[in-house]
Amino acid sequence: MSKIVSLKSDRLKVEVCLTPALLPLHKLENSVVVVIDIFRATSSICYGIENGAEAIIPVSHVEECAAYHGTGHLLAAERDGEVVEGFDFGNSPFAYTPEKVAGKTIVLTTTNGTHAIQLSRSAKRIVIGSFLNLSSLSQWLKDEHENIILVCAGWKNNFNLEDTIFAGAVVHQLKDEKYILDDAAIAAEDLYLLAKNDLAGFLSKSSHSERLKKLGIEEDIAFCLKIDETSAIPVLDGDKLVKL
Amino acid sequence: MSKIVSLKSDRLKVEVCLTPALLPLHKLENSVVVVIDIFRATSSICYGIENGAEAIIPVSHVEECAAYHGTGHLLAAERDGEVVEGFDFGNSPFAYTPEKVAGKTIVLTTTNGTHAIQLSRSAKRIVIGSFLNLSSLSQWLKDEHENIILVCAGWKNNFNLEDTIFAGAVVHQLKDEKYILDDAAIAAEDLYLLAKNDLAGFLSKSSHSERLKKLGIEEDIAFCLKIDETSAIPVLDGDKLVKL
Repeated sequence: MSKIVSLKSDRLKVEVCLTPALLPLHKLENSVVVVIDIFRATSSICYGIENGAEAIIPVSHVEECAAYHGTGHLLAAERDGEVVEGFDFGNSPFAYTPEKVAGKTIVLTTTNGTHAIQLSRSAKRIVIGSFLNLSSLSQWLKDEHENIILVCAGWKNNFNLEDTIFAGAVVHQLKDEKYILDDAAIAAEDLYLLAKNDLAGFLSKSSHSERLKKLGIEEDIAFCLKIDETSAIPVLDGDKLVKL
Repeated sequence: MSKIVSLKSDRLKVEVCLTPALLPLHKLENSVVVVIDIFRATSSICYGIENGAEAIIPVSHVEECAAYHGTGHLLAAERDGEVVEGFDFGNSPFAYTPEKVAGKTIVLTTTNGTHAIQLSRSAKRIVIGSFLNLSSLSQWLKDEHENIILVCAGWKNNFNLEDTIFAGAVVHQLKDEKYILDDAAIAAEDLYLLAKNDLAGFLSKSSHSERLKKLGIEEDIAFCLKIDETSAIPVLDGDKLVKL
């Protein structure tokens, strides 16, 4: 790109941050941030809050999570796709059913999602997105009239397709004259439009597809691609994610 | 993404590094790197080498470029899209015609492209790509049988559409069973396939389109989107880009 001339405008911005490594390029303090980790952290957070969890406390490190032992909270720790030994559960959405989480507080650490939440803490507000709450989240964002940054948690700071495609789904729902899109938002929407009629088929092209199958989490994956299964919007309130 | 299980394979990789900020995630030393800055640095480098420039020396800072005053080299410095005062020229391809550059050495610093070259120096080999040399570059890459990293220079570490789409064009030409693509390569190819029948039209959606028009460089932009106008492949040899 040859030059960006500063463009004065009162229009709001929708930006997509393709990996947490690019967060320093965005002005978080002027924006509502949506954290996205489709497989599986933010899908499970949406499902847990929908199902009556009182709060989910995202922490970056397994040790921080372990420090809550004996508090009565449920402790959830996932690293590299597996439940960490000694913890109640990891980030499979099926661990966040009403029977398991209603009225409970869950302390959660995951490889990518909770890390992205911590890195976004200077934002005006942080909410959690997944295909499960796509429409209610998008409607709420429209009503807010704020700059929006869609933060893809990716995989260990790498770009991934599923988080980007979800970001594109939000861009598509938001799209109107009110917003200026950055190039990443334009690309994300285009990729979503290619994928939308067969999300699972599109993502089966991804470099991780074969590896995910080996993990035996195909049911989790299928669940995380269900659209509008929930309507709750988890929002960060102090150190806790609660229902908006 | 939930987990990447290490997958042993003898197949070669094609990765797309969407911005220089993500270079630390890639193993450059095992790979051939293609540096991409479509508007306009790498297009101009391809054109200059094609047109008989003896060498182009990429430097990161304007001061380094200025230090070559009096050596007989042509000095080219661009910042934020404009020629820096006191320099022979910037990064418009029309400054790299045979009449101007044949037999000459050019010292070049640009906002994004030369920076990306410097950051890629640990690679096995660094070559320069643009739409101008797309097919000859892709054929050479195929013949090399190496891991390939396509490095998009972007804009000040931000993702941009034009560099990504060119990366996708290379992925498309390379695509065969020999290579494993990362998610960024898959996305780049999909975006290229959307764009390929009307590159200029597709890029006119980009967030920078209006601003580029204000710079009055539409002719440069149109030229940089010409496919296979040249066949020379610039390669870094020590501190100089020369014809392969």
